[in-house]
Amino acid sequence: MTNDFPGSLAIGIDVGGTNTKYGIVNQKGDILSQSEMKTETFATPELFVDGLYEMLKPMMDSVPTGSHIKGIGIGAPNGNPFRGTIEYAPNLRWKGVIRLCEIVTKKFNLPSVINNDAKAAAIGEMTYGAARGMKDFIMITLGTGVGSGIVINGNVVYGHDGFAGELGHSTIRPGGRTHWGTGMHGSLECYASATGIAITANEMLDENPAVDSLMRQYKREEINSRIVTECARKGDKLANEVYKFTGEILGQALANFVMFSSPEAIFLFGGVTKAGNLIMDPTKESMEKNLLPIFQNKVKLIFSELKEADAAILGASALVWKLDEKSNSVV
Amino acid sequence: MTNDFPGSLAIGIDVGGTNTKYGIVNQKGDILSQSEMKTETFATPELFVDGLYEMLKPMMDSVPTGSHIKGIGIGAPNGNPFRGTIEYAPNLRWKGVIRLCEIVTKKFNLPSVINNDAKAAAIGEMTYGAARGMKDFIMITLGTGVGSGIVINGNVVYGHDGFAGELGHSTIRPGGRTHWGTGMHGSLECYASATGIAITANEMLDENPAVDSLMRQYKREEINSRIVTECARKGDKLANEVYKFTGEILGQALANFVMFSSPEAIFLFGGVTKAGNLIMDPTKESMEKNLLPIFQNKVKLIFSELKEADAAILGASALVWKLDEKSNSVV
Repeated sequence: MTNDFPGSLAIGIDVGGTNTKYGIVNQKGDILSQSEMKTETFATPELFVDGLYEMLKPMMDSVPTGSHIKGIGIGAPNGNPFRGTIEYAPNLRWKGVIRLCEIVTKKFNLPSVINNDAKAAAIGEMTYGAARGMKDFIMITLGTGVGSGIVINGNVVYGHDGFAGELGHSTIRPGGRTHWGTGMHGSLECYASATGIAITANEMLDENPAVDSLMRQYKREEINSRIVTECARKGDKLANEVYKFTGEILGQALANFVMFSSPEAIFLFGGVTKAGNLIMDPTKESMEKNLLPIFQNKVKLIFSELKEADAAILGASALVWKLDEKSNSVV
Repeated sequence: MTNDFPGSLAIGIDVGGTNTKYGIVNQKGDILSQSEMKTETFATPELFVDGLYEMLKPMMDSVPTGSHIKGIGIGAPNGNPFRGTIEYAPNLRWKGVIRLCEIVTKKFNLPSVINNDAKAAAIGEMTYGAARGMKDFIMITLGTGVGSGIVINGNVVYGHDGFAGELGHSTIRPGGRTHWGTGMHGSLECYASATGIAITANEMLDENPAVDSLMRQYKREEINSRIVTECARKGDKLANEVYKFTGEILGQALANFVMFSSPEAIFLFGGVTKAGNLIMDPTKESMEKNLLPIFQNKVKLIFSELKEADAAILGASALVWKLDEKSNSVV
């Protein structure tokens, strides 16, 4: 996975809108120490990095003798690996372009590298997870939104401007549901995200007033993908329909992605995957049905091997092992 | 474009269902000599290669003094670069797996390389055309079908099995028009190919019996994309609508491709591009409308620079310059 000397360690930092998780990771993907703090309490990125340093310093001081911290990897929404920045992230209180790598490197006196969170997850899977040794795969993160990290020929796809891999925004239902944020119609994220699943559940409850459902025990605005999953597991018909509908659309989108880059595997990751077979079975069926025969029964559709709780730190830390391959701040 | 010595020449062979075009090309993309012959008159691939040799021998004997033929590049439907084969091509009379490179190399005593025709076109554009120096672009061939060649980070995308880049078969209208060959519903090829355009024209004539149209001068089965173009250029309203409809769908599909790999440019190539602005304008408008803001007004959507008549030979010949980069029969 890396040619660094055995004592090499990496710091992984996952910057989220609410919480920031951080930890120290060895080359096998063991997290030696980890913790988290609130992101939004820090008024400026500089104060945020000062706060991080305070928390990480004791961890860094207590790494095993003979080990060495190689660098810092950061996963963040709208993280730009080419410029070492976070740019116009809608869910963070710091606006505009934030030169986070510069601030981090100055404070910690260590090289640092940033990437968007979905691409970091793909690199994490490639470094520590089930994608080890794979040269062509796609990671789809199904959370509040739908993110993606695409690996082709062993490299993450960035495109000519660093923005490649916005598969959540590809149109799968032309003229369909309006996206709450982009205003676009019928994008994958409108349906396959946790947000989309809650909308589908509400729509189905509205459209089937005569059908009894456990989901009716909840206030409409409370219904989320976790509740839909619980109801479906209890045998609720409508809740099961929600996942069938979601899987059919997700499978169609995945089939399109397969015919683009012919990956060996597609990994599903994120909160929605807690629905297990409820989401996996209809997605797989729909994907296979929408593939040309030459692609059928070849692509492994699997859940990520990284533990949800650790994945963010692991993904961010994995960026560090790639530090040498290109310039200092690009993986 | 290549580091070969100045006198290096390449043979380009484009195997089509009806005709095979061939020629000798220098490194600048000048075709020194070219001709064509019927493909289907040859009962076996061996006889076909014997025929090719008869035709090419005099051309090879008359190349300028001091020049040297480096190898043979072949573009063919279902050409597999990894195995040097044509595999199960529906439009050729030779069935199954044909080890064409082996037969060609034995007969000509020259290294040979094969690729599918759309990928050869992409390599041709990268070698001699408007994609020179580009690392990320997509070539879309709009002919009887819709083919594609995707280049990411300077390399053609093959995927884990060599079959990547079947963008014509991606679903853009779920539950839409049934594909005449695959039986799938609403794929891009159903609409944006010459075949699809003829179907759209016929549908629009049926659905608008009261609307006068120049297209009604033709027998229904005669109507093709050339006739639609001619009528549209004469101001025919319905014929113009055909291209607006086609462009809207093609643009939606291209927007999805852009959000996958963020290419610097998309090249359109093939017979349908003779419609010029009739197809370009609505496609561009629709593509931009369906992109996330971060991708808008960035991607060059342009027609291929290679002359239609020469492109097949140029594309095939371009494979030869890449012969050194990997193994003998892989580009």
